[in-house]
Amino acid sequence: MEQTLKVCIYGATGYTASELLRALIEHPYVEITGLVSHSTAGKKVSEVLPHLAPALGERTLTPEPEEDFDLAFLCLPHSASMELVPELLSKGKKVVDLSGAYRIRNREAYPEFYGFEHGHAELLERAIYGLPELFREEIKGADLVANPGCYPTATLLAIYPLLREGIDFDSVIVHALSGVSGAGRKPKQSFHFPEMEENIFAYSVERHRHTPEMEDVIFRLSGRKLNLRFTPVVVPTARGMLSTVYVKTEFKELREIYMNTYEGERFVRISDTPPMTKWTLGTNNCVIFPTYDERTSTAVIISAIDNLGKGASLQAVQNMNLMAGFEEGLSIPKVPKFP
Amino acid sequence: MEQTLKVCIYGATGYTASELLRALIEHPYVEITGLVSHSTAGKKVSEVLPHLAPALGERTLTPEPEEDFDLAFLCLPHSASMELVPELLSKGKKVVDLSGAYRIRNREAYPEFYGFEHGHAELLERAIYGLPELFREEIKGADLVANPGCYPTATLLAIYPLLREGIDFDSVIVHALSGVSGAGRKPKQSFHFPEMEENIFAYSVERHRHTPEMEDVIFRLSGRKLNLRFTPVVVPTARGMLSTVYVKTEFKELREIYMNTYEGERFVRISDTPPMTKWTLGTNNCVIFPTYDERTSTAVIISAIDNLGKGASLQAVQNMNLMAGFEEGLSIPKVPKFP
Amino acid sequence: MEQTLKVCIYGATGYTASELLRALIEHPYVEITGLVSHSTAGKKVSEVLPHLAPALGERTLTPEPEEDFDLAFLCLPHSASMELVPELLSKGKKVVDLSGAYRIRNREAYPEFYGFEHGHAELLERAIYGLPELFREEIKGADLVANPGCYPTATLLAIYPLLREGIDFDSVIVHALSGVSGAGRKPKQSFHFPEMEENIFAYSVERHRHTPEMEDVIFRLSGRKLNLRFTPVVVPTARGMLSTVYVKTEFKELREIYMNTYEGERFVRISDTPPMTKWTLGTNNCVIFPTYDERTSTAVIISAIDNLGKGASLQAVQNMNLMAGFEEGLSIPKVPKFP
Amino acid sequence: MEQTLKVCIYGATGYTASELLRALIEHPYVEITGLVSHSTAGKKVSEVLPHLAPALGERTLTPEPEEDFDLAFLCLPHSASMELVPELLSKGKKVVDLSGAYRIRNREAYPEFYGFEHGHAELLERAIYGLPELFREEIKGADLVANPGCYPTATLLAIYPLLREGIDFDSVIVHALSGVSGAGRKPKQSFHFPEMEENIFAYSVERHRHTPEMEDVIFRLSGRKLNLRFTPVVVPTARGMLSTVYVKTEFKELREIYMNTYEGERFVRISDTPPMTKWTLGTNNCVIFPTYDERTSTAVIISAIDNLGKGASLQAVQNMNLMAGFEEGLSIPKVPKFP
Repeated sequence: MEQTLKVCIYGATGYTASELLRALIEHPYVEITGLVSHSTAGKKVSEVLPHLAPALGERTLTPEPEEDFDLAFLCLPHSASMELVPELLSKGKKVVDLSGAYRIRNREAYPEFYGFEHGHAELLERAIYGLPELFREEIKGADLVANPGCYPTATLLAIYPLLREGIDFDSVIVHALSGVSGAGRKPKQSFHFPEMEENIFAYSVERHRHTPEMEDVIFRLSGRKLNLRFTPVVVPTARGMLSTVYVKTEFKELREIYMNTYEGERFVRISDTPPMTKWTLGTNNCVIFPTYDERTSTAVIISAIDNLGKGASLQAVQNMNLMAGFEEGLSIPKVPKFP
Repeated sequence: MEQTLKVCIYGATGYTASELLRALIEHPYVEITGLVSHSTAGKKVSEVLPHLAPALGERTLTPEPEEDFDLAFLCLPHSASMELVPELLSKGKKVVDLSGAYRIRNREAYPEFYGFEHGHAELLERAIYGLPELFREEIKGADLVANPGCYPTATLLAIYPLLREGIDFDSVIVHALSGVSGAGRKPKQSFHFPEMEENIFAYSVERHRHTPEMEDVIFRLSGRKLNLRFTPVVVPTARGMLSTVYVKTEFKELREIYMNTYEGERFVRISDTPPMTKWTLGTNNCVIFPTYDERTSTAVIISAIDNLGKGASLQAVQNMNLMAGFEEGLSIPKVPKFP
Repeated sequence: MEQTLKVCIYGATGYTASELLRALIEHPYVEITGLVSHSTAGKKVSEVLPHLAPALGERTLTPEPEEDFDLAFLCLPHSASMELVPELLSKGKKVVDLSGAYRIRNREAYPEFYGFEHGHAELLERAIYGLPELFREEIKGADLVANPGCYPTATLLAIYPLLREGIDFDSVIVHALSGVSGAGRKPKQSFHFPEMEENIFAYSVERHRHTPEMEDVIFRLSGRKLNLRFTPVVVPTARGMLSTVYVKTEFKELREIYMNTYEGERFVRISDTPPMTKWTLGTNNCVIFPTYDERTSTAVIISAIDNLGKGASLQAVQNMNLMAGFEEGLSIPKVPKFP
Repeated sequence: MEQTLKVCIYGATGYTASELLRALIEHPYVEITGLVSHSTAGKKVSEVLPHLAPALGERTLTPEPEEDFDLAFLCLPHSASMELVPELLSKGKKVVDLSGAYRIRNREAYPEFYGFEHGHAELLERAIYGLPELFREEIKGADLVANPGCYPTATLLAIYPLLREGIDFDSVIVHALSGVSGAGRKPKQSFHFPEMEENIFAYSVERHRHTPEMEDVIFRLSGRKLNLRFTPVVVPTARGMLSTVYVKTEFKELREIYMNTYEGERFVRISDTPPMTKWTLGTNNCVIFPTYDERTSTAVIISAIDNLGKGASLQAVQNMNLMAGFEEGLSIPKVPKFP
């Protein structure tokens, strides 16, 4: 019999928290002891996330945790996470941080891409990058897991087999599409339903903060200092992410190394047709289609995830399961709602 | 040869102004001399409505009109319209008011439904209700036209033949669906794309301000003091409105009186199948399907419009054409984009 | 420890089967022994329902069951279900029929609304209407459950408290909106994405086969022969159903009787605001908002469900749990995906 | 005073025909003398395209033209267009062919990409590629215009300034997103509303027939035999196309050459922010955003059009205007519906 894990969610009002709760509510060994929110403290969960009324409606959001807990999920702004993590670690808590505050080991990226100097850079080496298919063993022993960004999750899973096999490649271009939930829950003009519907547009074309994150992890994995060209595009879906990676290479036998790399991985599947994002909605699944274009000597790898599933909260639950010694897939939805 | 009409748009940054401009830019006898906005004064049109960049991009929004004009379109909050109208009339301007400030003759409705005492109630009788199929001749001579609400436009066109023919009916229930643009351009949580997509909900179920508007016009047309039961519902489309009207009546020959009433009307069509809102998108068209349910002695009349077309701005242009003596349909889009 | 229930799904390629499988795959006491399909026999599940590839991809669809089973779910055309049910019952199988073949006790409704004479009308009395909140005890002992239609589920749950309390009412009007999945998986012109997007329309306005179903169940519950006026409307969502019921009545204390009727029901919640369909997506939940309009002496009851959840497949699993003696909510998703 | 041009539309039931008609109905010098359709001959236009009921509802589709005409628009399958064009030319008709039958000068592309041997390859040199910003003068004198594909339109407009200025570049990658209408009007499983909604997927990843079209035009313009890497992706919008072009180059002053190239072009605008497809919906506009990524020596050019506007039918009207000597933009919608 497993021991119950007490968890506290900080920033319990947005989309990543909502998706976390969907999985945690059904988890047999998890007790949700705290739902912390500064902005909506004192409100009931059912006022802020009314779809949770049947499960958690009467629970109240509090400005600070009111009960003890073993592990915290941080669904906070980057700078708030950066400040809170050392405090939690010093109290012996385990932390899964869904912000970007501890994802990049190179501290110099923070002022440029996050707008602040990193005040706790000594912890950057201690933070484990929470992509279990790449760093499973480190995650099991970690007390601080930096849960990956959505674009990096889809993209790194698409690139990893090339790195693992030491394939020679260069000129990496990543063109990735995201549903609107990736931009968070706060209403904005361009995401107002009448304006986002029937609309498609690229953003952060000059530079996006997930670029250094991807480059940093690639460096950790392979020692290569690659410059990625990355263009994110938003399309009118609530969820879903499709990342297409183009690399110049002479290596053609992609399918074999992709099958080998992810053999036995329950959440990654190599498809022999281009994946639909709909196959992953509400799950922690990633579907990858690798193909080789002879005419241009280009490997084209297409990777589909749910940006809030494998791209955020369900991957965070996967990390929690590993950190707590639970079965890795416990309570993580595996079958997408269809249609 | 027609004389050019100089027009000024107050509140030139929202959806109704945008749709007005789409028609007015192509109008052969209209010159747009003013684009007034308090909140965004000093900005270029292309910053606020970038889709207009090719046509009006370099034009600047001003806090007050900088050139003379003959007719003003008011796309303002109700209370701002209420205050501005007498000032414009006193300067000899014609006004088409797209707010609700002058739609209801009974001044007592304003505190309850609009939240203010009507400070210029003496003008309520002077304001002509801008539904040309019902009040065409009065509109031609008007200097103040209260452009109807979207729900009242769809619903009154659906009920009018019964009133005109003096049909005996009662128990009026109006169940009407609207696209999200009807709620305006300001972002809100429930209209944030990820939350509005795959969502349907009723609102203002207790009372909606279009209820007294519909009852007031029915009274003007027929002398009947009806109590309408009205339920508005929002569905995930940018535009489109479908109003279904249920009335108890023994009169069954609906199709004939509907055909007769709207014979010769270019913007109203009686369909022999239930209309699709898509048939009306971007146009000033209204399609009506009247049917009779013998089992329940109920006339069921379904009416489709574009809430920003016939339901707001294109009807405002129709009113302007009538007021200025132009051909009634001039420069009003007649063929919907499909698909 | 529960005994495993072997189940077979007939018609295992459409939306109701897909949603059934989502719940059954995770059910601790269910073994899916058969996936039957005439039209796609011989294909792998992953060819027909590729989102199920991780869970069932290698399983093959067969023209007939190849293994024994205890209970069959029929996701078949109405006439096919009508024919198959007696054969299955004669072999001692339990049946949950998701078609309309056994929902109406009055056999005369079939030629008019389903296009065939009912060849096994003797079974109509034996079939239990599978709405557990109304017929729980009968379902527990049933071998044939007629799983309700989506519109009747939402509507009957909205009307039932009035019937149960013997409230005097008449003039029932039901105006209900449905997502497109309610029309099935087969592509049609009006449901082609470019035509359904930004579109709203009523259909089957003259008569819909769910009208006699609702009237029949109301008669069973209350002995009243009501004529319902019912208008179904399709809106551009994949899922979701919002039924609004209008009845004339002098009884005003709606909230109290609704709270009482559904006290202790885990899948029905009485809301004090109009429900959003998004609160129910992917779940078996029904949220009801009852309100009274004094001006028109009308009770207005709004009911939200997922048409494939409580409106079809998850209710079918609820019925199966009752028939098999399992805990009623076992393996039924309770927390909606949000957003 | 212009002389009236009589036009006939072959294949008058699909999306490109519908969009053609939207512009042609309002054209002051065009008379639509024929609406030809084999599959629906004998039906009224209002049965097949009910949104055209107010304008053309009583017109009948015929199996062959019943009146004489000057110019034909072909909205036919590729092979049907291939066969019909020589017959029309021999009768002295002008032709705008919206299929791909005459777009590529290299006849060898047809068996591979269109599935047939080109039976009239002698006409391939005579056909002018109907992209007016590139081939305006040839179009004016043409009797056969091959109207470009949607992806090539967006992409060639994005690449053309580099070719025109003789910029040195290579490694061209085109990643382009399209709304569903690009796949035509015929319903398909993957475009059934419930499956396409909340879905994103790449298709024709190995090879798409627009690849040789783009390569062929680039060769004509510059003499360069480039191999393009092209990935098309479908996203859940009815319309809209966003093409992103990546090329390796040392040339950085992109904005200047883009401004120069398209100076005076009314339908192409160089934006200083990434374009939204919504800015172009229902219009013939193309908005291009060129930017240079120093870190990867990559020019990134993003181009937005409406796939049925500039990408098909409105460009066809632009071509017709040029061929007939009318003002180039006559009757072409310039202001998008917003929202």
